Amino acid sequence: MAHITIIGTGNMANAIGGVLAAGGSTVDYISQDETGTAPLNGDIVVLAVPYPALDAIVAAYGSQFDGKTVVDITNPLNFETFDALVVPVGSSAAAELQAKLPAAKVLKAFNTTFAATLASKQVGGLQTTVLIAGDDAAAKTQLAEAITAGGVGAIDAGALTRAHELESLGFLQLTLAASEKIGWTGGFAVAR
Amino acid sequence: MAHITIIGTGNMANAIGGVLAAGGSTVDYISQDETGTAPLNGDIVVLAVPYPALDAIVAAYGSQFDGKTVVDITNPLNFETFDALVVPVGSSAAAELQAKLPAAKVLKAFNTTFAATLASKQVGGLQTTVLIAGDDAAAKTQLAEAITAGGVGAIDAGALTRAHELESLGFLQLTLAASEKIGWTGGFAVAR
Repeated sequence: MAHITIIGTGNMANAIGGVLAAGGSTVDYISQDETGTAPLNGDIVVLAVPYPALDAIVAAYGSQFDGKTVVDITNPLNFETFDALVVPVGSSAAAELQAKLPAAKVLKAFNTTFAATLASKQVGGLQTTVLIAGDDAAAKTQLAEAITAGGVGAIDAGALTRAHELESLGFLQLTLAASEKIGWTGGFAVAR
Repeated sequence: MAHITIIGTGNMANAIGGVLAAGGSTVDYISQDETGTAPLNGDIVVLAVPYPALDAIVAAYGSQFDGKTVVDITNPLNFETFDALVVPVGSSAAAELQAKLPAAKVLKAFNTTFAATLASKQVGGLQTTVLIAGDDAAAKTQLAEAITAGGVGAIDAGALTRAHELESLGFLQLTLAASEKIGWTGGFAVAR
């Protein structure tokens, strides 16, 4: 399977790394302290950090992302109000990232699945499904194969422009969980 | 339960009316031909029509909507490209409708559930759940009670501004079904 570097060591980083390692991928982690000094060994780099941390990562590695698949998992919420996104209306964190890293293959993924449902591999009795948006078909296929090998579903949700809809879905899901309409072990499941 | 008038006689109109009637609500229908002449008997009026039909309904009934709960179920897609919404970026069909009917209590609902999953009352083994957005808490509660009495779940998804996210979710779900990533009997289920 793939060689994957995960930047971040939080709940989402561990949940994503667990799925990918279970599928046979080689997974290494870069902590916040190591960012900029630890090498990007993977062909796929998952940025498992909050949205505000993206800029420092882009600044630290810059052209070292060229040619790599870079996975943005962020939900760019205003976490003070829980009532809006902080990216420009109609855009997405993933589109911003692609603009800053034009030679990387940016994918949006994992922002619509809570850490608990990645770890348990199910949501409400259905297999957890990762929705992937991006403009590079081969990159999407490689990531989807690495995910499905780990026992979690994956669906190609379209071009990187669909990251806007994935971030809307992630936003909605976070507001529902924060207001206790759903639990952090639940959320949106995908029935095929 | 409530007295509900449904404008529209298609698959969605029938599926919504079926749930509400099963819950004990009084349900009557207004067909396209009768629009403007048939009276709005219900306290709740569900506009179970495609997005392009909304303007003619607003023009036909105008102030007759004042004080009523008006439910917008539309997904305002560009159905030629399946790649964009036709409402202004960041806005929603529901917000547009509220602006045209300032004295009505506009709710967004039923746009994230396919007709088949309303009729069967389940998605992938989970109870079908209708997400409701709107600014009038009492109107949301009344609609939610009418839905849950009919055996379908309902969740208050927040203020009418959240209609943007509900329409993003509906858009994404339609693109996944149209591209055969999911079936028209599947889609997004909500695990509590």
